[in-house]
Amino acid sequence: MHRLFKNRSKKTGLPPGALIHIGEKKLAKVKITAMEYSGTSCLEREIPDINECFPLKNDQMTTWINICGIHSIENIENIGKLANIHPLLLEDIMNTDHRPKMEDFEDYIFIVLKTLTFNEDDKRIDAEQISLILGQNYVISFQEKEGSIFTPVIGRIKNGKGRIKKMGADYLAYALLDAIVDGYFVVLEKMGEYIEDIEEELITTPSMETLRKIHNVKREILFLRKSIWPLREVINTMDKGELPLIRSSTYVYLRDVYDHTIHIIDTIETFRDMATGMLDIYLSSVSNKLNEVVKVLTIIATIFMPLTFIAGVYGMNFKYLPEAEWRWGYFAVLMAMGIIGTTMVVYFRKKRWI
Amino acid sequence: MHRLFKNRSKKTGLPPGALIHIGEKKLAKVKITAMEYSGTSCLEREIPDINECFPLKNDQMTTWINICGIHSIENIENIGKLANIHPLLLEDIMNTDHRPKMEDFEDYIFIVLKTLTFNEDDKRIDAEQISLILGQNYVISFQEKEGSIFTPVIGRIKNGKGRIKKMGADYLAYALLDAIVDGYFVVLEKMGEYIEDIEEELITTPSMETLRKIHNVKREILFLRKSIWPLREVINTMDKGELPLIRSSTYVYLRDVYDHTIHIIDTIETFRDMATGMLDIYLSSVSNKLNEVVKVLTIIATIFMPLTFIAGVYGMNFKYLPEAEWRWGYFAVLMAMGIIGTTMVVYFRKKRWI
Amino acid sequence: MHRLFKNRSKKTGLPPGALIHIGEKKLAKVKITAMEYSGTSCLEREIPDINECFPLKNDQMTTWINICGIHSIENIENIGKLANIHPLLLEDIMNTDHRPKMEDFEDYIFIVLKTLTFNEDDKRIDAEQISLILGQNYVISFQEKEGSIFTPVIGRIKNGKGRIKKMGADYLAYALLDAIVDGYFVVLEKMGEYIEDIEEELITTPSMETLRKIHNVKREILFLRKSIWPLREVINTMDKGELPLIRSSTYVYLRDVYDHTIHIIDTIETFRDMATGMLDIYLSSVSNKLNEVVKVLTIIATIFMPLTFIAGVYGMNFKYLPEAEWRWGYFAVLMAMGIIGTTMVVYFRKKRWI
Amino acid sequence: MHRLFKNRSKKTGLPPGALIHIGEKKLAKVKITAMEYSGTSCLEREIPDINECFPLKNDQMTTWINICGIHSIENIENIGKLANIHPLLLEDIMNTDHRPKMEDFEDYIFIVLKTLTFNEDDKRIDAEQISLILGQNYVISFQEKEGSIFTPVIGRIKNGKGRIKKMGADYLAYALLDAIVDGYFVVLEKMGEYIEDIEEELITTPSMETLRKIHNVKREILFLRKSIWPLREVINTMDKGELPLIRSSTYVYLRDVYDHTIHIIDTIETFRDMATGMLDIYLSSVSNKLNEVVKVLTIIATIFMPLTFIAGVYGMNFKYLPEAEWRWGYFAVLMAMGIIGTTMVVYFRKKRWI
Amino acid sequence: MHRLFKNRSKKTGLPPGALIHIGEKKLAKVKITAMEYSGTSCLEREIPDINECFPLKNDQMTTWINICGIHSIENIENIGKLANIHPLLLEDIMNTDHRPKMEDFEDYIFIVLKTLTFNEDDKRIDAEQISLILGQNYVISFQEKEGSIFTPVIGRIKNGKGRIKKMGADYLAYALLDAIVDGYFVVLEKMGEYIEDIEEELITTPSMETLRKIHNVKREILFLRKSIWPLREVINTMDKGELPLIRSSTYVYLRDVYDHTIHIIDTIETFRDMATGMLDIYLSSVSNKLNEVVKVLTIIATIFMPLTFIAGVYGMNFKYLPEAEWRWGYFAVLMAMGIIGTTMVVYFRKKRWI
Repeated sequence: MHRLFKNRSKKTGLPPGALIHIGEKKLAKVKITAMEYSGTSCLEREIPDINECFPLKNDQMTTWINICGIHSIENIENIGKLANIHPLLLEDIMNTDHRPKMEDFEDYIFIVLKTLTFNEDDKRIDAEQISLILGQNYVISFQEKEGSIFTPVIGRIKNGKGRIKKMGADYLAYALLDAIVDGYFVVLEKMGEYIEDIEEELITTPSMETLRKIHNVKREILFLRKSIWPLREVINTMDKGELPLIRSSTYVYLRDVYDHTIHIIDTIETFRDMATGMLDIYLSSVSNKLNEVVKVLTIIATIFMPLTFIAGVYGMNFKYLPEAEWRWGYFAVLMAMGIIGTTMVVYFRKKRWI
Repeated sequence: MHRLFKNRSKKTGLPPGALIHIGEKKLAKVKITAMEYSGTSCLEREIPDINECFPLKNDQMTTWINICGIHSIENIENIGKLANIHPLLLEDIMNTDHRPKMEDFEDYIFIVLKTLTFNEDDKRIDAEQISLILGQNYVISFQEKEGSIFTPVIGRIKNGKGRIKKMGADYLAYALLDAIVDGYFVVLEKMGEYIEDIEEELITTPSMETLRKIHNVKREILFLRKSIWPLREVINTMDKGELPLIRSSTYVYLRDVYDHTIHIIDTIETFRDMATGMLDIYLSSVSNKLNEVVKVLTIIATIFMPLTFIAGVYGMNFKYLPEAEWRWGYFAVLMAMGIIGTTMVVYFRKKRWI
Repeated sequence: MHRLFKNRSKKTGLPPGALIHIGEKKLAKVKITAMEYSGTSCLEREIPDINECFPLKNDQMTTWINICGIHSIENIENIGKLANIHPLLLEDIMNTDHRPKMEDFEDYIFIVLKTLTFNEDDKRIDAEQISLILGQNYVISFQEKEGSIFTPVIGRIKNGKGRIKKMGADYLAYALLDAIVDGYFVVLEKMGEYIEDIEEELITTPSMETLRKIHNVKREILFLRKSIWPLREVINTMDKGELPLIRSSTYVYLRDVYDHTIHIIDTIETFRDMATGMLDIYLSSVSNKLNEVVKVLTIIATIFMPLTFIAGVYGMNFKYLPEAEWRWGYFAVLMAMGIIGTTMVVYFRKKRWI
Repeated sequence: MHRLFKNRSKKTGLPPGALIHIGEKKLAKVKITAMEYSGTSCLEREIPDINECFPLKNDQMTTWINICGIHSIENIENIGKLANIHPLLLEDIMNTDHRPKMEDFEDYIFIVLKTLTFNEDDKRIDAEQISLILGQNYVISFQEKEGSIFTPVIGRIKNGKGRIKKMGADYLAYALLDAIVDGYFVVLEKMGEYIEDIEEELITTPSMETLRKIHNVKREILFLRKSIWPLREVINTMDKGELPLIRSSTYVYLRDVYDHTIHIIDTIETFRDMATGMLDIYLSSVSNKLNEVVKVLTIIATIFMPLTFIAGVYGMNFKYLPEAEWRWGYFAVLMAMGIIGTTMVVYFRKKRWI
Repeated sequence: MHRLFKNRSKKTGLPPGALIHIGEKKLAKVKITAMEYSGTSCLEREIPDINECFPLKNDQMTTWINICGIHSIENIENIGKLANIHPLLLEDIMNTDHRPKMEDFEDYIFIVLKTLTFNEDDKRIDAEQISLILGQNYVISFQEKEGSIFTPVIGRIKNGKGRIKKMGADYLAYALLDAIVDGYFVVLEKMGEYIEDIEEELITTPSMETLRKIHNVKREILFLRKSIWPLREVINTMDKGELPLIRSSTYVYLRDVYDHTIHIIDTIETFRDMATGMLDIYLSSVSNKLNEVVKVLTIIATIFMPLTFIAGVYGMNFKYLPEAEWRWGYFAVLMAMGIIGTTMVVYFRKKRWI
């Protein structure tokens, strides 16, 4: 629930652009890393103060400033001033409950989206918000905490592997997007395995616990949808070829991420249909079991009620009860009871109840 | 129900533009507050008579006239004449059952929308209708009753905090919109907590009462949707950049409200899915409980019916009933009964019914 | 059912434009009223023969011809010739099973729609078809029977109240549309009250009868939707500002009717969701009741089956049955029974079944 | 099932345009009828050989060639050559499992659609495929078997009734379309009556049979939808006014057929909702009945179990059983039993179970 | 499950365009076949090394290179270099979990789609990915393993049957698409038969097994949808006439494949509705059976409980029990019991329970 809707009410009444951190504080200290690279050189360093990054190097270099920790108002404000970012965006960066979106401010593009991880322990999806600012020759990324999501991208820049080092800031932004979307596949995979486990359980040993799991899965799928669905529009807008900050050679890559996003959304929808299907199966199997239980009851009652009645009849204390006098009365009655019981069993067998 | 559809039939047969107050009268006396401000000065006063406000001060000043109480036909008519508002709009202002909408009349823009509050006592959402008229250098707002929704905006104008004082009437209209939309977040949050409570109850102690709560929540969500959904279109239209009354610098703010609205609508849809999911869980748990109850019944019947039958057999009054004569007959029968009973219990345990 | 789909098969095989009255004949005799008015004068008269109306007065006057009764082929054909109406439209006018639509034939606009009334007795909605032909300076309206739906419009023209008398034929057409749409609000209100009644009944005394009412409401909502939904498109098309017969000053009024229609459609959708919700509640309460009933059964069986068994044991006729000989055997058994019974009751209380 | 998806696999691996008849052979011998008419003359004849029709008469005459029977490859190939039709269309004509569609090949327009009939015996809808080729001055129609669907059109041409004789090939194509769409109304009507019957049955004597009927109706509605839905797009495309083969005077007629199609689709959707509603009612009534049955069981058990227990107590063979010695013991016990039984009945009455 | 979402996580962290085979390795050794043909000549050969194919023959010849086996990175990289294909596409070719798509890179068009086969044994659908690259005068196709899907196309080229040999690479690409889509019809047909079997089973002998089959069918339909749905867009894009590589004469053929795809999607939706319908029927029949079982129980209990009670009454050991003394007491009681039993039976018959 908490992840589906965060506490934003403390913002009520504040002027637009007022900076307030919404969400959990996931990091003790803000950590800023700057990376400057061109086709030939590459410099990475951790910097204690954001002021050191600015002014940016010349146009030949691409600068990537990665900020881990977004709870410090002072810090964010400072960046805003140095990089000339609109106050509303600063507000969005600090609000971790933001819907994925993209906005184009001629000088820079602002993108906000989520990284997701599947928590194996409680089978829930954890989300972290990532904001990206893509300028002419720089990218500024904001993370809630240090994570490994961008590690491969850093590696590729440092090793000079692939084409990333030779290409500009727009390709870097794409590479970050791609890394995040790749992370979704991992979540989907684990989710898929979890769904498979539940399906298995559903067929072998369905219980109230299974129902709770299905309910949980449905909620996680809702959360997934809410986190990823808007991304489709975001990337589609970027892909339309009308943003001057994105070079034409980068479009083919954006289209690739777009395809991945569509694929992911398709899979989420499939998961959703599967979860609904599982609920139907669960309900059906509960009904089936009830049938089984009631059948047992009916069989027992149908066999023993008449027999008990007969026993009751011959247990009556009438003075004149002719059969009771007979020599073989007892055995005759036992035999009659045996026949009645057997007939019942045969009847139920014919009806396929046993 | 009342809130889902108000009594409009008294308007039937009246000419268009005929003024009739539809809704509850929430205030004894109309209260009018006027606020005139520019970047440097600010004057707020309560005025007894609407005529005092007009003619408006010169173009340097922004005038905000806030009218609390819309049940007085005379008053509304007067404002209509002074501010030159189309009679159909006056009709809309007095009809508190209006769907949120925006209309552009070159000279002014008319916006009608709802403020919502979550009533903790009966867990229902109360709505109040707000109408805004945005002119070149003035905003007229109509509220059903005095509320605190605009207090922070008033505060910011008086304190000169933020950029509101320096900007024109369009920014003021935005600030009012933003205050209202911010109020929705508070409602959503309380709604979310309520849903969380019900989910908790659903897992621990589901009862007919829980069902009633789920039903209630679903109805409130319907009401929320009906009240907020049209707002999306309203703000989207304003955001398209074709309204001459809205300066280009204000668009980025409108886009921000638009994002919030989309976010809210997303959350409402998520709530809806969750409510549906809760109903499914409820039904499943009712079925499960039925199964449990019937299992108990079946176990009891299956154990005691055969035993009672045996007791019945040896209660028959046959003259010749050999076992009855035996010395250990009674104990043999008791033992047989014990064995049968134990077998049943073992069988049910194996079937996982106990 | 009848109202959801009328018998049209008698038209099969006829050429297009062949005039056949489809629907119930609701009136014995056709009644034609003509009204000619300008800003200053107004003449209303009932005319026996449609020929008297034509040729129309000069352009200064607006003529409204209201025809009650559409079952007379001869009459309709005559009007068609006099007013130069396309035969296909005449066919549509006589076919009361027509879907609301608007068609623009440069010289005139043809509109067909439904008036609805809520029948309090059988809680059903009755529909009547209204066709309007709007020409340069005339409106011809066709009703199935005399009704009071247009009475307020007639009144306003005669009294010269409002702006209707000063404005042209397009405003008259709008006024008629508005009167019809206003009528929908009355139906919705009564429908809403009916739904409220059912909800009340659902919580207090749900029965098979309640189910039937819910089913009935759902059907009426289907009928409402089918009758009103297409109107949205009709008015939207008129509102687009491309019809030469509609003056620009009339658009603001059409937009108002459009808003009302959207509001009505919203409410119908809300009703639909509520009806679905009620069905869910009904089903849940049936399940709940079953649970209650089965609980009673299980409690009774679980208490008395063991007790009866014990009584049965001591009712056996064994020669040697030691307890039977005891002085206090009877009371000991009674006490044991009491303890078992009490234990059961305590157990069920703990399980919250009692 | 068969009608929802026909056996097309025999086409797999064949080149496009390979002629294979898919569907049932409904006619022994192909029958070709040719009709040539202008405003003044009309000639109808049955011709044994398709070659006789070509070359077509001059432009003054409209020629309609109606071919009943599409299973003869040779025949279809021949027509294809003579009328210069694309091989893919010939393939489509012979494949009776085709989706309704329209294709514009400058020289001619190709339309394929379905005629439907409601089979009263097994309450199923039978479909027949009709293909139309509309050229400058000719129409070629292909039917699976001889039917009466075009009889009224033929009659109107022969009688010279209506405007059909005076108008060209495009009007003829419209007239055929109109005849087919009129046939749908007949199917809908019978379907509606059938639904009404089931609703009646549902309220009076619901049974497993009723469920099967509902299932059947749902399937037929699926089939209806699949057959008619694409027609909407077909006629809409024709109606857009961009086909040179269709004269502008014919558009008003096409728009009329379009309205009918929309109306039919609306009704199908309504039927669908009604079928779903009926299923809900069925399920509810099954649940209700279960409740009734279980109530009876519970009442019986609750009354007789305690009584039987009491009887059992006094049936115990204890030596010392004081009540048994009493003079009025038996009557006292009988009375006690009577009181307990009556109390139970009163209790159930209060609970409204009886 | 596996087929609904494949293991892609091993790609996480790799740069875009990094080649990794995702999916099962279905073939031991890559097999490459090259086919060069013009209207007059045709040469087919299996080639051990991809380098032999390049450079391509002159423009007069159409070259089709068919590669079976996509798990060899080296091989795919080689082809990429020789045919100048974008690295991202090579990545897509090797990733068998790709969503069907089409991309236009001026020099060539890239298409990826699925061939499907219905596995009769476990009633599941197996998918194989096919990638096509269509250049000016060549087509390169990639298959996961050798299959018979393209055999008819090869045959037609070799025999010179049909128009394929005379037309260019675009027609060849169409022919391959058509062959794949034709394969879908076979799958649908078998699926349809399977659904029919389940429906049959549902009516005659519904069991938990039937439920599992329905669940399975629903999952297969989900898989079908996911595999085929995007194809609609793919072919639609190709059909729009804006691709320079596709000659205008080929469009009519593409439109034909498009029609088939729509038809297939329609059928999938119908299957989906049918599967949902079957689940409803299943649930209803389970409920019905429960009713039947409970009825039996109630009848038995209602008949024998009162009778057993009566027997119990006369089994009481009261000293003074007048009826027990009567000469005909026993028979009178038996008769009374008979009457009560018969009355019950008659009552149940009247209630239509028996």
